[in-house]
Amino acid sequence: MARDQGTSEFSDLRPKEKCGIIGCAGTSPITSDLYYGLRILQHRGQESAGLAVYEDGLKSKRGMGLVHEVFTKEDLVDLRGNSGIGHVRYSTTGSSVLDNAQPIVAKTSYGEIALAHNGDIANANEIREELSKKGWAFMTTSDSEVIVRLLANEIVNTGDVKRALREFTNRLVGAYSLALMINDSVYAIRDPLAIRPLCIGEGNDRMMIASESVVFDTLPGYRFIRDLKPGEIVELRSDGFESTRLPHPNHTAHCMFEWVYFARPDSVLDERLVYDARVKIGEQLAHEYPVPADIVVPVPESGRAQAQGYAHVSGLPVVEGLIKNRYIERTFIMPEQADRETGVMLKLNAIRSAVKNKRVVLVDDSIVRGTTIRKIVGILRLAGAREVHVRIGCLPIRFPCYLGIDMKTRDQFIANEKTVPEIADFIEADSLGYLSLRGLISALKHSRDDICLGCLTGEYPVPIPGEKMRKERPLEMFSDSATKPSARKKASSSR
Amino acid sequence: MARDQGTSEFSDLRPKEKCGIIGCAGTSPITSDLYYGLRILQHRGQESAGLAVYEDGLKSKRGMGLVHEVFTKEDLVDLRGNSGIGHVRYSTTGSSVLDNAQPIVAKTSYGEIALAHNGDIANANEIREELSKKGWAFMTTSDSEVIVRLLANEIVNTGDVKRALREFTNRLVGAYSLALMINDSVYAIRDPLAIRPLCIGEGNDRMMIASESVVFDTLPGYRFIRDLKPGEIVELRSDGFESTRLPHPNHTAHCMFEWVYFARPDSVLDERLVYDARVKIGEQLAHEYPVPADIVVPVPESGRAQAQGYAHVSGLPVVEGLIKNRYIERTFIMPEQADRETGVMLKLNAIRSAVKNKRVVLVDDSIVRGTTIRKIVGILRLAGAREVHVRIGCLPIRFPCYLGIDMKTRDQFIANEKTVPEIADFIEADSLGYLSLRGLISALKHSRDDICLGCLTGEYPVPIPGEKMRKERPLEMFSDSATKPSARKKASSSR
Amino acid sequence: MARDQGTSEFSDLRPKEKCGIIGCAGTSPITSDLYYGLRILQHRGQESAGLAVYEDGLKSKRGMGLVHEVFTKEDLVDLRGNSGIGHVRYSTTGSSVLDNAQPIVAKTSYGEIALAHNGDIANANEIREELSKKGWAFMTTSDSEVIVRLLANEIVNTGDVKRALREFTNRLVGAYSLALMINDSVYAIRDPLAIRPLCIGEGNDRMMIASESVVFDTLPGYRFIRDLKPGEIVELRSDGFESTRLPHPNHTAHCMFEWVYFARPDSVLDERLVYDARVKIGEQLAHEYPVPADIVVPVPESGRAQAQGYAHVSGLPVVEGLIKNRYIERTFIMPEQADRETGVMLKLNAIRSAVKNKRVVLVDDSIVRGTTIRKIVGILRLAGAREVHVRIGCLPIRFPCYLGIDMKTRDQFIANEKTVPEIADFIEADSLGYLSLRGLISALKHSRDDICLGCLTGEYPVPIPGEKMRKERPLEMFSDSATKPSARKKASSSR
Amino acid sequence: MARDQGTSEFSDLRPKEKCGIIGCAGTSPITSDLYYGLRILQHRGQESAGLAVYEDGLKSKRGMGLVHEVFTKEDLVDLRGNSGIGHVRYSTTGSSVLDNAQPIVAKTSYGEIALAHNGDIANANEIREELSKKGWAFMTTSDSEVIVRLLANEIVNTGDVKRALREFTNRLVGAYSLALMINDSVYAIRDPLAIRPLCIGEGNDRMMIASESVVFDTLPGYRFIRDLKPGEIVELRSDGFESTRLPHPNHTAHCMFEWVYFARPDSVLDERLVYDARVKIGEQLAHEYPVPADIVVPVPESGRAQAQGYAHVSGLPVVEGLIKNRYIERTFIMPEQADRETGVMLKLNAIRSAVKNKRVVLVDDSIVRGTTIRKIVGILRLAGAREVHVRIGCLPIRFPCYLGIDMKTRDQFIANEKTVPEIADFIEADSLGYLSLRGLISALKHSRDDICLGCLTGEYPVPIPGEKMRKERPLEMFSDSATKPSARKKASSSR
Repeated sequence: MARDQGTSEFSDLRPKEKCGIIGCAGTSPITSDLYYGLRILQHRGQESAGLAVYEDGLKSKRGMGLVHEVFTKEDLVDLRGNSGIGHVRYSTTGSSVLDNAQPIVAKTSYGEIALAHNGDIANANEIREELSKKGWAFMTTSDSEVIVRLLANEIVNTGDVKRALREFTNRLVGAYSLALMINDSVYAIRDPLAIRPLCIGEGNDRMMIASESVVFDTLPGYRFIRDLKPGEIVELRSDGFESTRLPHPNHTAHCMFEWVYFARPDSVLDERLVYDARVKIGEQLAHEYPVPADIVVPVPESGRAQAQGYAHVSGLPVVEGLIKNRYIERTFIMPEQADRETGVMLKLNAIRSAVKNKRVVLVDDSIVRGTTIRKIVGILRLAGAREVHVRIGCLPIRFPCYLGIDMKTRDQFIANEKTVPEIADFIEADSLGYLSLRGLISALKHSRDDICLGCLTGEYPVPIPGEKMRKERPLEMFSDSATKPSARKKASSSR
Repeated sequence: MARDQGTSEFSDLRPKEKCGIIGCAGTSPITSDLYYGLRILQHRGQESAGLAVYEDGLKSKRGMGLVHEVFTKEDLVDLRGNSGIGHVRYSTTGSSVLDNAQPIVAKTSYGEIALAHNGDIANANEIREELSKKGWAFMTTSDSEVIVRLLANEIVNTGDVKRALREFTNRLVGAYSLALMINDSVYAIRDPLAIRPLCIGEGNDRMMIASESVVFDTLPGYRFIRDLKPGEIVELRSDGFESTRLPHPNHTAHCMFEWVYFARPDSVLDERLVYDARVKIGEQLAHEYPVPADIVVPVPESGRAQAQGYAHVSGLPVVEGLIKNRYIERTFIMPEQADRETGVMLKLNAIRSAVKNKRVVLVDDSIVRGTTIRKIVGILRLAGAREVHVRIGCLPIRFPCYLGIDMKTRDQFIANEKTVPEIADFIEADSLGYLSLRGLISALKHSRDDICLGCLTGEYPVPIPGEKMRKERPLEMFSDSATKPSARKKASSSR
Repeated sequence: MARDQGTSEFSDLRPKEKCGIIGCAGTSPITSDLYYGLRILQHRGQESAGLAVYEDGLKSKRGMGLVHEVFTKEDLVDLRGNSGIGHVRYSTTGSSVLDNAQPIVAKTSYGEIALAHNGDIANANEIREELSKKGWAFMTTSDSEVIVRLLANEIVNTGDVKRALREFTNRLVGAYSLALMINDSVYAIRDPLAIRPLCIGEGNDRMMIASESVVFDTLPGYRFIRDLKPGEIVELRSDGFESTRLPHPNHTAHCMFEWVYFARPDSVLDERLVYDARVKIGEQLAHEYPVPADIVVPVPESGRAQAQGYAHVSGLPVVEGLIKNRYIERTFIMPEQADRETGVMLKLNAIRSAVKNKRVVLVDDSIVRGTTIRKIVGILRLAGAREVHVRIGCLPIRFPCYLGIDMKTRDQFIANEKTVPEIADFIEADSLGYLSLRGLISALKHSRDDICLGCLTGEYPVPIPGEKMRKERPLEMFSDSATKPSARKKASSSR
Repeated sequence: MARDQGTSEFSDLRPKEKCGIIGCAGTSPITSDLYYGLRILQHRGQESAGLAVYEDGLKSKRGMGLVHEVFTKEDLVDLRGNSGIGHVRYSTTGSSVLDNAQPIVAKTSYGEIALAHNGDIANANEIREELSKKGWAFMTTSDSEVIVRLLANEIVNTGDVKRALREFTNRLVGAYSLALMINDSVYAIRDPLAIRPLCIGEGNDRMMIASESVVFDTLPGYRFIRDLKPGEIVELRSDGFESTRLPHPNHTAHCMFEWVYFARPDSVLDERLVYDARVKIGEQLAHEYPVPADIVVPVPESGRAQAQGYAHVSGLPVVEGLIKNRYIERTFIMPEQADRETGVMLKLNAIRSAVKNKRVVLVDDSIVRGTTIRKIVGILRLAGAREVHVRIGCLPIRFPCYLGIDMKTRDQFIANEKTVPEIADFIEADSLGYLSLRGLISALKHSRDDICLGCLTGEYPVPIPGEKMRKERPLEMFSDSATKPSARKKASSSR
């Protein structure tokens, strides 16, 4: 709809989750629940949204924009059905964006299949090439089309949906939380390493799966049941679900970034409340990098829970010294005049009286390029902060993600170009502390072996062409990464 | 984009051509030519439009609406390329309309394929089922996707585009004029019976194919070369084209409706100018159904050339006694109040002074339901016409078309429910004359064996499941269909 | 709406009527009738549309675009009312277009007033300045706001609507057909010279006024009553109307261009059917400029009735040798590549077989710049026409219109720069004949004194600052304007 | 834009500021600064936005939606100018919304005037009636049109803009912060009681006025100068400004709600930082209503600073126990299924681990209907909170605002129907404390005489028809409003 004619200003300053998924089966129409559920999952993808439902056949609509922009009241009436799935997506720009929106729908000799996918199939190109060599044609560039064709083929060959679901996943390497509709049946699959989240809940006459538990907390009448297990396949029924398991290793590879940044703080992922993990990260940071200071200031919204944890341990008060313009987030239409760093100023402002002459501990979740945090430090100094000590609730990100997060190239990471002291200098912080691996692990309450750390270590839980596969290594190899407060040249005097 | 929120009022009152296609290859950008060419072909489809071009890869855009509504200036800049194809389409309504818009684009191991298709594949479902049983999935309901997958498969299997083009068409039964882009090469194919039109022309540094010759007449710098031959495959080059032929019978099956109604009068189709055919039809009608009268009134726009022919032979003057509201054509948004027949009144009005007390010969191209012509007769009578003699430039339409025209069910045709005298009564005409088959054939200047008459005779030039295949039959079997003027009860007295 | 993102290609090649108006009062909802009535008047203005109705207060909507684009079904439900007025408008481009759309609505101490205006107030600036000097502010640049403020002032001062309607018009100099709603009452006024058309009709429980009688012919259930008289003020009631007269001279000044070009041929304006006038113009042209020729070809649509008249007198057949692309009319988005003259080619095409080797009499209604007719002559010659004799159903247009037509500057008229022979040369016609004044007058069936000829003679029926006022002059002063066929240098040889 | 086809869910649950204004004059184009300035002021109005600039005449655009939705890149190029004003607005729904958008533009004999207005003119109807009786017509229902006509009249009568600005304000009773453009000059006026905020700042070659100081903090290159004084009129120049004063009383009537809720926390209004005021309010609440508790939870975003203050004094930790869905704010399209209270659940969720078994002090800024806070209390209890003590940073709102805030009827306020203990019961809080007047006054750092308390006391600083005018009264008359924790019946047992 040409809603955003300009450039999204912060799109490359933060990692982007690729998707959120949902599915529901009941004995009465579930469209409204899918719609609101998608709105609750909106933080997992803002570029396109889609629904596919079944009532005397499969009906679907996909569109560019936020959920409430894509679906009109009339659409929701048209999309009436007792079972269905939905999807929100962050996707790269280009003329084919709508083609890559989901749910993707396919007609087969067995019936209709709709797919909503969260994750990345690491060997999608390999499978695509193999199928292409057999003469198959693809109408999109998405790995989801690869999945759906593979599945369709398996269903037709086996004539048995459940067997097909088990067998076609043998071919998939990577991260996949899937919501599937095969005719009027709704299935959900979580990959054997459980990389992306997926959980199940129940309503009055219906069962639902969703990317995050917050859906069940906030959608009236629902109750969270549990996470899907690694490699679990469930078929939703109105009054329960059937479950089978794929072969799976004795460890998982949950994406640590869900807890660190992506998921809503009020979601429980694999039995660990995101909020608690973040508070604990903040506490850990306070233990690892104590510093004499006056206040703890979170970067809103991403550093808020961590700041609470840091404050708790350090005994310093949390002060909301940075104010965010809620309306300026989405676009700038004059990028030449308001470049990205200026954008940060339009988006964030410091409260002078709150930070003036204060020694500030500034807490955020992660650093990608370093330009945003640098600007925020500058804003605090301009507002009179005497010292700014930056604490980051994650290790330095240095490697691409091939498993569902949109960070694809090494050169976007400042931590590949600079050492921690150099980064502290670049962002003009008086000190800089990144969370240690030990601290991260302890905060997530999962063993190191059960967490995917690919973007931090460059070693991935599945084979990725051209990348290293993870082996067991002692935690010690990640020495703590911090600058000492004394290491900072007194930049404030020169300004 | 919500352009038409109401119901298209005349959509089912007239047969609809399904599509127009175009393709171009040159040594400099051809996008603008494709765009204007599509606008010139707009009469062949008003529901969706699309372009696919090649420049460092394939780029495409499709959308709902008229050509100038779908493409912005920015789109045309983005779609820069030295080769490309385009499509306009009439398509059925529903949520999946955009999915069925063309050109359809597919990625294969050989490269990218884009397809624009005019016609109908009679055995599409059969092929689709066969491929489905092999485990292939389809993402649309269109026969065009069947074509493109079949072609992709053939290309990959043979590794030879030209051979693949020849061989995959073996599987296709039906009408197909195709514009294809395979990577940066543009191909055109016309089915062995040459059912739908397709011709070739040249510009300064480029070659073009298009559904109708009018494109070459009106697009500056172009020159018409010739029609594609039955079963011809051409590859466009900037300076010429390469041609091969599929096996083909020694007769064709040109759709007679192109001359009777669909094509623009200024197009030459298979060496017969549409305008000339229509004038000749009118002359023929005058020979077959002379009647004492004062004036010849065409139904605008569809009966105009035929009226000229009738006038020429009969010696009566043509009088433009019916005036059309150019702006009211497209939609009514209060169908309950302005039903379809009222719609005709809003669309057409008679000029009282021109028809008052006159004996009118009313000329149109064809009758489907009979409700529109009935209303027009009524409008003329209300305006004071003393007699209204209806002359129709075609035989009674009684059978569905499976080869590219949107008339799919028998029960929409009045000629299946009523005899000609009954139709005359129903439409309240003083007399009614349908063109004879002999007259039609002579007007088209093609032998009866070379024309598809499926919708008139129920016998089709290709095998259609559940329908009869055409055998040679003597022309005589189509006895002339007319009512005598005297046969008409003086309906005017009863009103 | 972003409907037209390009440049309207023919906007300055043809004079534009400024507006169409409608009004209705009944005992049940009239919204649907106003809506369809406006659609029937769409040819009088395509840039904006508006409705104002009364039901427990005044409700209105105006928007840019065609009538069916501006109003959704929901709008028509919201705009329910038993009385109302409507407007379609051609308006100049710019950011304030919507502000100038009508009906214009004003709140006064007497109540609410809505105004729909067709015409131009010649002394609007003078009144505006006078009111401005009294400290009044204006929110638009339109003369309609001047009218509404003047009226509001008069109503409040007199406390008597009918007296106010009579008195405020004393101040107005110019052309004004008005539809007014004052609270729930609907009034119509026609200026004392009856420059713009306005007529009255009746439905079952309602009365309607409209710019053209065609509304009553084609809107089901209506019957035309009569034209409003010069200076007549009517108040519509559900069962009739009250009429009073303004002082008025003993002659009128009907705009001749309504018959020549603007109005629909099936409208009767001031007792003269437009179609008849145009046929008669054609006949007159044949008498004034006979030429040995083979066929008469109209420029579609504007020359069609005239061509019939020419054919009738000359005995030559009318041949529809020019075909118009119905869909290409409205916009070009690449004006640099398809300049206006190319635009003519995309819009019109000649039928070769119809014109080849023929001596063609080409008939159109008028010439403004001369570039369009020049291109059409060229198209005919390219198609093989041996001779092209142009016959124009009007005198040379040389002067601006200040009374309701959008032709404001002298330098747009070729007849101000060239003599008739020079124009013939410029347009490359073998001969050129403009209708004589005597011929025009006789075709319109109104006395010369009752017709406004300002754009032809430069003498206007009302005082216009800087222009001459009309005096009575003998018809003879307009000598016939034509080139002799022999006067044309054989341009074809040079091409 | 039809962006929001549903019902804005929270629109009536919170008071709405009516507008934000901006103005700028420089020696080079200021359009981009106005645009970004408006985006920074977006929190003051989200329904319409507009800009008016001067360059060889006045140019303007207004539209429905957020600033970045109303203006395209092309618009900003078209609106190039060295001086201009802008406006964001919250406005009531209906068909005339666009008409009431601002800046409003008027043409006068002196030139063009554009007006952007924040506030409400209490005697607008009176002036409108008076002018109407003189025969003036109004085209909108807004008091801004009244202002602009009055000003235009005064300018023309006096022939002296500055005198006119001083004199026309004599007629205005109420709240008005105005940005005016009179031809290419930009003026700003603040009413003599300084009810709405307005301040001035400087850029490199330009001066700017804006509703809030945050514009100067976050727009690169600007510096805040000072608030406009009560009754001050300034004319902006590129290098400074000229100032005069209207007669004004020796006290002001700043709207207390700007500090309590409307303004951004990082704005300084009349020398009091909003953030500081809110922190102080929280501290005051802790002094007035201490309670044994475990954590302080803010309602995001509106109670955050107050919670910090409460925490500081009470020694309790702030815990962000409520999480807001950032994307669900704006609309629901199925209001029947997701009524407003359900809407609160979709918008807010509690973090179970943070509040479980905790005694919570819940802090928000104000209560209107009470339904939202009731739901939030319920959400906390569902998440396991043992006690919920509500602390409100303002007195009970009981009276309409006639001076710029959209709360017009008494019956929307729960405090008019229930006593404080009854409200505590209704919202199911264990205790409820509203800030005392003394506490509010001390937090705002302005004397009681200088603050407008109309919505709290029903006594207004200017004469309002049918309402009481403020007299000096002792602070004591506002006895503290609170329930004792013990007063709460143990509602939890009954649930």
